[in-house]
Amino acid sequence: LLSDGNARLAAARRLTRRSARRESGRFLAEGPAAVQAALQRPDTVIEVFATAAALVRYEWLRTAAVPVDEVSPAAAGALSETVTPQGVVAVCRSLDVPLDDVLARAPRLVAALVEPRDPGNVGTILRTADAAGADAVIVSGDAVDVYNGKAVRASAGSLFHVPVVAGIDVADLGGTGLTTLATSGQGDTDLDTLADDGSLAAPTLWLFGTEAHGLPDAALKLADRTVRVPIYGQAESLNLAAAAAVCLYASARAQRRG
Amino acid sequence: LLSDGNARLAAARRLTRRSARRESGRFLAEGPAAVQAALQRPDTVIEVFATAAALVRYEWLRTAAVPVDEVSPAAAGALSETVTPQGVVAVCRSLDVPLDDVLARAPRLVAALVEPRDPGNVGTILRTADAAGADAVIVSGDAVDVYNGKAVRASAGSLFHVPVVAGIDVADLGGTGLTTLATSGQGDTDLDTLADDGSLAAPTLWLFGTEAHGLPDAALKLADRTVRVPIYGQAESLNLAAAAAVCLYASARAQRRG
Repeated sequence: LLSDGNARLAAARRLTRRSARRESGRFLAEGPAAVQAALQRPDTVIEVFATAAALVRYEWLRTAAVPVDEVSPAAAGALSETVTPQGVVAVCRSLDVPLDDVLARAPRLVAALVEPRDPGNVGTILRTADAAGADAVIVSGDAVDVYNGKAVRASAGSLFHVPVVAGIDVADLGGTGLTTLATSGQGDTDLDTLADDGSLAAPTLWLFGTEAHGLPDAALKLADRTVRVPIYGQAESLNLAAAAAVCLYASARAQRRG
Repeated sequence: LLSDGNARLAAARRLTRRSARRESGRFLAEGPAAVQAALQRPDTVIEVFATAAALVRYEWLRTAAVPVDEVSPAAAGALSETVTPQGVVAVCRSLDVPLDDVLARAPRLVAALVEPRDPGNVGTILRTADAAGADAVIVSGDAVDVYNGKAVRASAGSLFHVPVVAGIDVADLGGTGLTTLATSGQGDTDLDTLADDGSLAAPTLWLFGTEAHGLPDAALKLADRTVRVPIYGQAESLNLAAAAAVCLYASARAQRRG
């Protein structure tokens, strides 16, 4: 049992703050699903902290190829951002890759979150992009990082599946060679029209803004088209994660039908 | 300015509890967007409570055809379930309609949430169903009601747009005459297959379960088909609201293309 004042534990605790994540190039993955997904990825987990109860409950921790240390429930709780901590947290190496690496692999479907503000949305859209078979997710701006505890949790393991490009400038999203589609409630083109005319079958970069403010002008300008998800009822808009799911699955379907 | 001990205010405060909502047939809609959507619906709002600041900020409150009373910021806060109350809350009449009324209008697209547990998901799927042009949303079971503060807020006004059938038994979802599709990660049929073969153009009742446990057997049994949203990447599943968005928009598109 590590003492609550242990230096490695104290260093891990600091990773709940963004500045410490940036400086150290490390982040925390919390809960059995995230820790298991992290352990399945090579060279990702540095160490795991778990309570006695978690060590009994999650047998797979015993065969992990990294150090697994028992900590007190209080220490595990201090590493957690949830109301009901599950007693297991992994310290992981940051995973983001350069945009050029993603582009070099001739991606077919990429989702970019432009200056997102809500870490839950970042994680949820990462999960949806993974499910839709996206080749990468890009997060621009520096308001919310993908290693935020809420984002990691909402991604349900997908942070460890999909290459992530982090913290780049919006301007870098121009000139990728991909058909660039900007989502907007006032978009020029209806998503169904693009599905019908075959446009969605092209390698595509989707740009998603924030729910409150949409995309900044800089992002709208570099898009080939602005696209709206059709609203058939009286709702003013879809929520961001729902809109992203509809767009990414429309692309996935069009690309698979050739 | 009403005193914080005012009897109508005390009655409104009780509506933050489900038992009081059920007994009184009333609920609270909080924040300018929800209150405005409620006021646009006939015979819905009974009274509005607003702070002095909200009365200045939201000019449309002055022309409301129902009583609008000024209350203290503390009293408005006590009616609110948000961290940053916006100072305006409407007391509304419950809106749910009998299932037979919905079926009598020959609906084309209906979403049923079977024994949901997360009020945020209920509200988000209501919003998505509204956007997709659904004719009604059904909520079965009694764990979460659609008038829960979080559900009302997440619906972003759609609770006042789409007919809602509340609190019915799962067994009542059989024999609606609609093609009944149950979503399941282990579904027999792929959503894309149904889109390709024209099945989605039929009048459809979608059944959605909970994210943790899916649909109960009783719901799976009464479905014509069990349907899975295809997972093209490594994600184990989509989150519930994202899956619902993909399914409902697939139906909306198929129905509009005939």
